[in-house]
Amino acid sequence: MAETTARALYDFDGDPDNGELSFRGGDVLAIIALDIGDGWWEARNDLGHQGLVPEAYLQISEEPPEPSFPPPPPPMSTPPVGGDYPDDPRASQYSTGTTSTTNGYNSQYQNTPADIGGGDYPVGGGFTTQQSTDEWDEDEWEEDDDHSSTSTDRGTSQELHLQGQGNFGLSTAKREPKQISPSGDMSKYGTVKKSFNRFSHFAKAGGEAFMMSQVQNENVSENDVITITETADGPVWPLPTDTFTCEVASPKKESKLKGLKSYIAYQITPSFSNIQVSRRYKHFDWLHERLEEKFACVPIPPLPDKALSGRYEDDFITERMHLLQLWINRIVRHPLISRSDVFHHFLTCTNEKKWKEGKRKAEKDEYTGGKFFLLLRTPVAQLEERDVDKTMETFCKFVKGMDDNVKGLITVMNENRKKHLGPYKREYQKIGQSFKNLATTFNLDNSSFSGRLTAAIDYTGDTYNQIGDMFEKQPRADLDPVLDVLYEYKGILSTFPDVLKIHEGAVGRAKECKKEQDEGKMSESDVQKVVNKADIITYGTMAQMSHFQAERVQDYKAMMQKYLKEQIQFYRNITQQLEETLVKFEDA
Amino acid sequence: MAETTARALYDFDGDPDNGELSFRGGDVLAIIALDIGDGWWEARNDLGHQGLVPEAYLQISEEPPEPSFPPPPPPMSTPPVGGDYPDDPRASQYSTGTTSTTNGYNSQYQNTPADIGGGDYPVGGGFTTQQSTDEWDEDEWEEDDDHSSTSTDRGTSQELHLQGQGNFGLSTAKREPKQISPSGDMSKYGTVKKSFNRFSHFAKAGGEAFMMSQVQNENVSENDVITITETADGPVWPLPTDTFTCEVASPKKESKLKGLKSYIAYQITPSFSNIQVSRRYKHFDWLHERLEEKFACVPIPPLPDKALSGRYEDDFITERMHLLQLWINRIVRHPLISRSDVFHHFLTCTNEKKWKEGKRKAEKDEYTGGKFFLLLRTPVAQLEERDVDKTMETFCKFVKGMDDNVKGLITVMNENRKKHLGPYKREYQKIGQSFKNLATTFNLDNSSFSGRLTAAIDYTGDTYNQIGDMFEKQPRADLDPVLDVLYEYKGILSTFPDVLKIHEGAVGRAKECKKEQDEGKMSESDVQKVVNKADIITYGTMAQMSHFQAERVQDYKAMMQKYLKEQIQFYRNITQQLEETLVKFEDA
Repeated sequence: MAETTARALYDFDGDPDNGELSFRGGDVLAIIALDIGDGWWEARNDLGHQGLVPEAYLQISEEPPEPSFPPPPPPMSTPPVGGDYPDDPRASQYSTGTTSTTNGYNSQYQNTPADIGGGDYPVGGGFTTQQSTDEWDEDEWEEDDDHSSTSTDRGTSQELHLQGQGNFGLSTAKREPKQISPSGDMSKYGTVKKSFNRFSHFAKAGGEAFMMSQVQNENVSENDVITITETADGPVWPLPTDTFTCEVASPKKESKLKGLKSYIAYQITPSFSNIQVSRRYKHFDWLHERLEEKFACVPIPPLPDKALSGRYEDDFITERMHLLQLWINRIVRHPLISRSDVFHHFLTCTNEKKWKEGKRKAEKDEYTGGKFFLLLRTPVAQLEERDVDKTMETFCKFVKGMDDNVKGLITVMNENRKKHLGPYKREYQKIGQSFKNLATTFNLDNSSFSGRLTAAIDYTGDTYNQIGDMFEKQPRADLDPVLDVLYEYKGILSTFPDVLKIHEGAVGRAKECKKEQDEGKMSESDVQKVVNKADIITYGTMAQMSHFQAERVQDYKAMMQKYLKEQIQFYRNITQQLEETLVKFEDA
Repeated sequence: MAETTARALYDFDGDPDNGELSFRGGDVLAIIALDIGDGWWEARNDLGHQGLVPEAYLQISEEPPEPSFPPPPPPMSTPPVGGDYPDDPRASQYSTGTTSTTNGYNSQYQNTPADIGGGDYPVGGGFTTQQSTDEWDEDEWEEDDDHSSTSTDRGTSQELHLQGQGNFGLSTAKREPKQISPSGDMSKYGTVKKSFNRFSHFAKAGGEAFMMSQVQNENVSENDVITITETADGPVWPLPTDTFTCEVASPKKESKLKGLKSYIAYQITPSFSNIQVSRRYKHFDWLHERLEEKFACVPIPPLPDKALSGRYEDDFITERMHLLQLWINRIVRHPLISRSDVFHHFLTCTNEKKWKEGKRKAEKDEYTGGKFFLLLRTPVAQLEERDVDKTMETFCKFVKGMDDNVKGLITVMNENRKKHLGPYKREYQKIGQSFKNLATTFNLDNSSFSGRLTAAIDYTGDTYNQIGDMFEKQPRADLDPVLDVLYEYKGILSTFPDVLKIHEGAVGRAKECKKEQDEGKMSESDVQKVVNKADIITYGTMAQMSHFQAERVQDYKAMMQKYLKEQIQFYRNITQQLEETLVKFEDA
C-alpha cells in the first residue's frame, strides 16, 4: 500500500518533549496525519520513530514511491500500546490535499459515513461507530486522549462518533483537532481545540427552519425564555440571577478493568451546592460539545488540548487542572450557560443512572442550533440594516485585530519568558560571578583596609546571582498569568468567526428575501417575518458581543493590573536587594 | 620590490569605524605592519584600502609573490595626507618574523641605529633621526598620532627617536605600539599603550651600577630624598604634603604652518596655580616617557591610545579628553610623581623658552632608571628573604589574578552594555508596541466601559517604550564609569610585571652574591652591601604595592558604590514609571 511521503527541505531539530520529530534536509518521511493543524503534520521516519513535523519544512512527494518493503499487516482491531501501529488505510487521501481548507477535508469525507457506518472493517485504532455513547465509561472515548492513536484516527473517529449519535441526522463538519505552536512555547498550555464548524452545524440544525418560519416558539416554556434588553452599549443578555463559582481540584488517578484502563478524575465543587462531583476530561469534552450545539451565538471557549504524551505526569495534570479551572470560570460567568440545564447536570450529578438520563436528555435538547433562537425574546424595535452592517463590520475587524494582537503578544511574552529563564538569568549571574572572581583575587591582599571591600564585592556577586534567580522565577508571577489570559482569548477569538458567520448567513438570507420582494416573488409580510428572525439573530449575536466586550474589559484590566503589580514588585525587590548591597560598602 | 603578503584563511567582517579592513577567505593582502600588537596587523587589499586585520585569520605567504605591478615610487619626505603612501622599505624584514617576540624584533634593529643615524635615506614617512627633539613643535612627533603614517613607521621612528636623544647611550627596548581589542568593544576607549620594557631600561640605565655599589647617593639633595616608612600594612611612600587637582578641558583645534598641520590642544589647569596651560597629546606622551624612565618601581598608567582615525572628530576628542583627565587624576594622586619636577614643569610652564629648558633638564635627569633608587631612604630593618619572596609571590599572583578578573569584567560589562543598547531596549519596546497595537484594536470598541482601559493600555505601551529607552541610556550612567576604572586598571596591571621584574632582578642578583659568598668568591661585607641595595629596591617596590592597594581599594569602593547607586536609581525609575502606569488602570 503506497503511503503519503514527504521530503524534508531543511533540517529540523524537534523538541521530543513536545512530541516533535527531528529530521535532516533530504530525509523522506512517511506522513501519518495531515490534519494536526497549525502547520504541523504527524510523520514517521525510516527508523520507525513518530512525531510532529512542521509542514513548511516538507514537500509532499508528488508520486509516492512504491514501498520497497512488504506491505504492512492489515489494521488490527486494538491499537498496540507503545509500539508501531498500522498505517491509516485512508492516509493517502491526504496526499493531494495539503493546501485545502477544512472544508476541503470535509468534502472528502462527506460520502464516507455510509460506507464506514456499516462497520465491516475496523477504522483507525479499532473504533466502531455502532456503539452507543450512553455508557458511563465509553472505552472509545479514552482514545480521545490517548497517545497511541494517531490524530487521523482521532479526527475520524470523532466524526463518526458524532454522526453515530444521529441527533441531527446530518453529517457534521469535521473537527479540526490539534493546534500546536510551532515555537513550542505553548507546550505547557497544551493547545486549543478549534470549534467544529458552527455555521455548518447551525444551518443544518434548524437554522434554515428558524429563519423561514417553519418552526414556532409557542412551545417554549417561560422558564427557558432568554430576554435581551437594549442598553446604551447595545443589546445585552439578562443579568445572571445568582452567581456562583466552581472549584476544580484534587486530580486523582483512577483505573478500571482491573487496572487495564486508567484515567485522571478531577473533583469539581460548585459553590451553590458545595457537593463534590468527579469528572474526567472526556466529560468536559462532552459538555463542550453540548454547549457548542446549543448556544449558536456564543463562542464556547475551547478546552485545553488533549495530551500527546505525558498524560499522567504530575506537571501535566496540574497544568490541565489549572486550564480546566480557567475554562469552568469562564463558563460559570456566562449569563446563559451558567444557568443552563446541561451545565447544571455536569456540575451536580453524582449518580450514575441519573447521569445517563441527563446525558440523554441534553443530547436530545430540541432548542439547539438554529432552534436556539426560538428561546430569545428581543426588543421590538426593528434594526436598521445599515447600522447593523456597520456594527458587525467593526466587530469583525475587532475580532480579527484582537486575534492578531493576542497572537503577537503571546509571541512577545513567550520570547520574554524564554529570555527570563535563560539569557537574562545568565547575564546577571555572569556579572555576579565576575564580582565574586574579583573578590577571590582581592582576598589575596590582607591589608587592613582591604578586607571589608572584598567582602562587600563578594556580597555584590551573590546579589547579582540572586537577581539572576529572580529573573528566572519572575515569569511565574507576571508572564504566566498574562499568557493564561492571552491563550484563553486566542481560543475564544478563534471560535468567534463561526458565530459571526451564523449571523452573516441570517442577514444574507433576509437581504435575499428583500430582493425577492422587489422582484415580486415574496410578499411583504413574509419578508418581514424573515427580517424579524434575522433581527432576533442579530440581537442574540450583539448581546453576546456586549458580553464579550464587558468580559474583555474586565479580563484585560485585571490582566494588566496583575502584570504591572508584579512587575513593580519585581523591580522593587531588585532595588531592595541592591540597596542592601550598597550598605555593605559604607564602612568598606 | 617584494612586499610581505598574507592569504586570508577565513572571512572577516571588520568594523570600519574601528579602522578594521574586511576580507574574504582566500584574499591576498599586502601586510603593511606586523607590530600593531594584540593579534592585529595592518594590511592593504588590492583595491588599495587599508586597515587592521586579525593575525589569526591570515597566513603569511612563504614566498611573497613578485608584484605584477610596477614598484611603488620611492618614499616621500612628507607623508601625503589621506592618500596612499609608499610601502615601508623595510616591511619585508617582517616576513619571517611573525612568531618572534618583541625582543625578536629588537634584535633585528639592534645594529641599525648607526646605519640609520647617518640619515642618508629617509625612514618611513620621512622621519629623520638627526633632528633634535628640543623643538616646541617637532613635526616628526605629529606622526605619532597620524593615521597616514603606518604603525611600522611609527614604531621604528619612535625607537630611532629615543636612540637619537642619546640620553642613556643604550639602545632602548622597542615599544609595543597598539593594543586593539579584537572584540571592537573598546573602540571608544582607544587602546592602551604598553610600557616599553622597563626592566631592560632599568638594567641598562644604572640598575647594575646601583646594585653593585658603583654609585653613591651622597650627592642627592635632601629635597629629593624619598623617605619610606614601615607600617602594619608594609612600607609606604611619604604622605603627599599638599594635594591638588588638575582639570583637563576645552580642547581646541589649532594649526600651524599656515594650516598645513593641525592638532588638538587641551587646556590644563592645576588647582594650586589656577593658571591654564595648553598641552597636546604629544606632550602627554613626552611626560609619560619621562615618568617611565624616572620612577623605576612605579607602574605608570598608559596614556589613552593614539588614534587610528577620526582624530578630529568631536566624539573622539571628548573621549580622549576624558581619558586624559582620568590619567592626570591618577598621576596627581601619586605621592612621588605629583611632586616631581618634570610633572610640575608639564603642569605649569607657559613660556616656550622655559619649556625647552625644562624639557632638556628633565631628559638629562640623573636619577632615572636604576639610579632612582639612590633617592630612597628606607627603614634600616633588614628584610627577611623568605618573607619578601612570599609577599612578592602573593602579589604577583594578585596582579595576574586581578588582570584576568578585570579583563573578564570588561568582557561581561561590555556584553551587558551591548545588550542594553540593543536587545534589552528592543525587548521592552516589543512589549510596548504589542500593548499599543492592542490598544489600537480596542479603540474600535466604543462601549462606554471600554475607553479608559484602552487609554491605560496605550499608556502602558508608552511606558514600556520609555523603559526601553531607559535601558539604552543606562550604560552611560552605570557601566561606562565602571568600564573607565576597569580599563584604567587593565593598563596599570599590564605595566606592573615590568616593575616587578626589576625587583626580581635585584633580589636575584643578591642571591647570586650570597652564593658567591658561600663559594668564598665575595666578602661578607660586599655581599651585605648588595643585599642592602636589593632591600632598598624591595622597600621601594613594596611602598608602591601599598600605594597600589590603597588606591585599588579606594577606586573599587567608589566604582562599586557608583555602580550600585546608579543601578538602584535605574530600577527605582522603572518602578516609578510602572507605578504611574498602574494608577491609570484604577478607574479604567
